[in-house]
Amino acid sequence: MQPTVAVLGLGSMGLGMALSLLRSGLAVNGYDIADHGFARLTSEGGVVSASAAEAAAGTDAVLVVVVNAAQTEKALLAEDGVLSGMKSAGVVISCATMAPKDAIRLGEAVEARGFHYLDAPISGGSKKAGTGELTVMASGSPTAFTLAEPMLNAIAGTVYRLGDKPGTGASFKIVNQLLAGVHIAAACEAITFAKRLGLDLTKVYEVITASAGNSWMFENRIPHVLGGDYSPQSAVEIFVKDLGIVQDIGRDTRFPMPLSASALQLFLMTAAAGMGREDDASVARMIAGLTGLDLPTATKG
Amino acid sequence: MQPTVAVLGLGSMGLGMALSLLRSGLAVNGYDIADHGFARLTSEGGVVSASAAEAAAGTDAVLVVVVNAAQTEKALLAEDGVLSGMKSAGVVISCATMAPKDAIRLGEAVEARGFHYLDAPISGGSKKAGTGELTVMASGSPTAFTLAEPMLNAIAGTVYRLGDKPGTGASFKIVNQLLAGVHIAAACEAITFAKRLGLDLTKVYEVITASAGNSWMFENRIPHVLGGDYSPQSAVEIFVKDLGIVQDIGRDTRFPMPLSASALQLFLMTAAAGMGREDDASVARMIAGLTGLDLPTATKG
Repeated sequence: MQPTVAVLGLGSMGLGMALSLLRSGLAVNGYDIADHGFARLTSEGGVVSASAAEAAAGTDAVLVVVVNAAQTEKALLAEDGVLSGMKSAGVVISCATMAPKDAIRLGEAVEARGFHYLDAPISGGSKKAGTGELTVMASGSPTAFTLAEPMLNAIAGTVYRLGDKPGTGASFKIVNQLLAGVHIAAACEAITFAKRLGLDLTKVYEVITASAGNSWMFENRIPHVLGGDYSPQSAVEIFVKDLGIVQDIGRDTRFPMPLSASALQLFLMTAAAGMGREDDASVARMIAGLTGLDLPTATKG
Repeated sequence: MQPTVAVLGLGSMGLGMALSLLRSGLAVNGYDIADHGFARLTSEGGVVSASAAEAAAGTDAVLVVVVNAAQTEKALLAEDGVLSGMKSAGVVISCATMAPKDAIRLGEAVEARGFHYLDAPISGGSKKAGTGELTVMASGSPTAFTLAEPMLNAIAGTVYRLGDKPGTGASFKIVNQLLAGVHIAAACEAITFAKRLGLDLTKVYEVITASAGNSWMFENRIPHVLGGDYSPQSAVEIFVKDLGIVQDIGRDTRFPMPLSASALQLFLMTAAAGMGREDDASVARMIAGLTGLDLPTATKG
């Protein structure tokens, strides 16, 4: 028999994952504190509940696709009955990016109540969430992996099995986020510098993406700048959060990370300028605003 | 008739280019202030001269493959007879990374003496120099391009034709170097952070190169760290120089670039610790030295 799944958090990632789960034949019950994705989920055959506990009642698995450790903790532990309503010995699949120590702590809390916990942060963006092709950086007990398998098959193109305890998945993800955040900020610093030098930015994109200066993020984000389209595919606030986690760990462990500290400041400056909820390529707009450069603006439809 | 070419500067890039020119059937006369590459060049059919002027005498083209603007200027203009010894109206192909204003100034000086000048910085590393597959970011007059064509065909896999005046090629290259330098420093910050978190670095390399945190430089340089091999494929001092050019332009034009400023400091710290002439991935060793981490060391052969 196919497991039934609750998805807690139906933002751009959670909704796409819920739809991928439905498409693979699983029964999905969703919940979000706002009404994100409710209409879409029900139109595709899912069920929407009035609370996290109601969504989780009677399910084999709960996927938590919220923003951070605090929201994950609240969804799982603060609301009465989320865990106790699940079928006994079910699995929690935790997808938010968080500090490794929080993943360890939440894993212990969930396991202490007789459930299993997979530390399973995700990468790939909302498009790949919707097509079931995410990358999952996972760690947890063999039982957690076995129970999670039907869900991982539905949402992921690649599942990295990185260790047998929660915390390792979170560690890999935060290393990825350090690089991703620095590379977005570097792409924005470089493309505005190119504009300051008077270069044709479309040509810069062509040359750099074929050269040693390329990064996954340069290739992915600079088209937002060239098109003047800053509608949020991933928001500035995500990197304020994730590079904040990196820097918190750095301070706790006396590990200096000056580059990611500098990138965090660029995201903070962009959020301070009122663009926190817009696309993370808005760092380029912030620099252009300071320095009086004209970047491309979106052509009206 | 095939043109004859002088190559001034026979370091890892210049020697490879000289060999690529020979392989395509051109007559090559080389010079270096040290004895870099002399034996190899003559063994492959090239000629080595006792001075830049002697190498350039009677040639149709001079390729300058030295480190910076000052060396380029010295090779072309300070030494008696380099330009006047060339065939009249020959072409200078200038490959060093330099500030756009220096490329403009040198181009004007060369053209004032009746020669042509191609601003032609190169990218791709010594391996591609040797196989004739470099990327060239070029700008100059149509005549300069036409005269340079046989040489560009011999050394390059891709030639970007970026404008009709010197300076534009240099501008594209310096934007590339901003990104390349930040990405190397970020790769070193991230891989040492991963070590601090206790992760399996080989697994980190596997996961990151398949994820959104990847960059051309992460993929290319982290194997040096994993193998503990810091023999210089590109030295720390190169990025002290190139990010220095970026920051000089930033100060001159009141254009703040905090990320590349921070990356420059990491390369300076690495040079200060005595690793200036070693591979640029030595930034990871510098961080490991500060923080007491054990990175892999080379296995003895």
